[in-house]
Amino acid sequence: MLQLYFSPMACSLASRIALMEAGLDARYHQVHLLTKKVVDDESDFRDLSSKGAVPVLVLENGERLTECAAVLQFIADVNPERDLAPPAGDTDRYRLHEWLSFIGAEIHKAFLFPTFWYKDDGSLAKPRARIAQTLSVPSAHLAGREFLVGNSFTVADAYLTWALLMLRPAGVDIAQWPSLSAYLERMQARPAVREAIATETALRKSVAA
Amino acid sequence: MLQLYFSPMACSLASRIALMEAGLDARYHQVHLLTKKVVDDESDFRDLSSKGAVPVLVLENGERLTECAAVLQFIADVNPERDLAPPAGDTDRYRLHEWLSFIGAEIHKAFLFPTFWYKDDGSLAKPRARIAQTLSVPSAHLAGREFLVGNSFTVADAYLTWALLMLRPAGVDIAQWPSLSAYLERMQARPAVREAIATETALRKSVAA
Repeated sequence: MLQLYFSPMACSLASRIALMEAGLDARYHQVHLLTKKVVDDESDFRDLSSKGAVPVLVLENGERLTECAAVLQFIADVNPERDLAPPAGDTDRYRLHEWLSFIGAEIHKAFLFPTFWYKDDGSLAKPRARIAQTLSVPSAHLAGREFLVGNSFTVADAYLTWALLMLRPAGVDIAQWPSLSAYLERMQARPAVREAIATETALRKSVAA
Repeated sequence: MLQLYFSPMACSLASRIALMEAGLDARYHQVHLLTKKVVDDESDFRDLSSKGAVPVLVLENGERLTECAAVLQFIADVNPERDLAPPAGDTDRYRLHEWLSFIGAEIHKAFLFPTFWYKDDGSLAKPRARIAQTLSVPSAHLAGREFLVGNSFTVADAYLTWALLMLRPAGVDIAQWPSLSAYLERMQARPAVREAIATETALRKSVAA
């Protein structure tokens, strides 16, 4: 069985959404990102992955895969009948790469990461100044489209759903981009997405308590 | 024929390396990233791609592909005999995704991008404080390995070669990581890599002149 190391509401939420959309059972191990401890057994998460970052997906053969773009595509390809990624060779597969890269670099690493980890104004002024221009790209793309790639839900949608959810606690109101807020509402109406978010919201509250 | 929009020594250099390693002819169009003009004809680069960023690869059918991870994989898959990407379905293909994501997010977007575009100390303190930890990941991986993925040159090596080259002008001396400096030397000894770098170095000097 696949095992996912995650932290509630971190980007590993996209992997949980993907696993649930794929109909795959998995074991979930919660990680405390500040202490780098695995909550199950207090073991050192850095022994599992020197990066110390979630997600880590442990494959059936014991190999460990990191990075959202890699983990999401692996999950999608385990169960191709669910169409969570266009098939290899299809032009749309490169569109999937394009969106995974854009979300990972431009929204996640350039904006959400410094917002939640750096906090000081000096670090945040430039990322804040750029985020509207960044969001104009998916906003324009999703005007009149239901999903990021092709005509069905893919793992790129799982990643963007997470990123859009985190914009609010990061101080960005996506109501400024009606196509993005309508998209997030559509994605959150999907049973697997709703359940994944509910699970991690509850875990996050219990951590904070 | 494929067309690559690039700026000398920007991350599009990785795409030029990939095209040359793949043995593919292409038309190259230089872009001035500050003015967002295409140098050929002074046209507005934003009309071609609203992101205003290189690389943009124009495919034979006229479609435009952006983002290093997507462009590099497209180029690799055009000429699979050159083995620039492991075949789809192979576990190593996910390792390729993993490295493309890590280089794109952690080295490029989290460090090189703010260093070259933001410049002020407030924006740079945190990225500078993190870069040694970031580089420890490929440094450990490349101790005793010739390439990032599998046993041959892939497009992940094209991307890391570019990133390592840019660390010097970004003020990071990679001699601190012997496995990285030895790797960069090996990569630069490849005829395609050497020629791609020489071409863009010359273009950059002529722009600066």
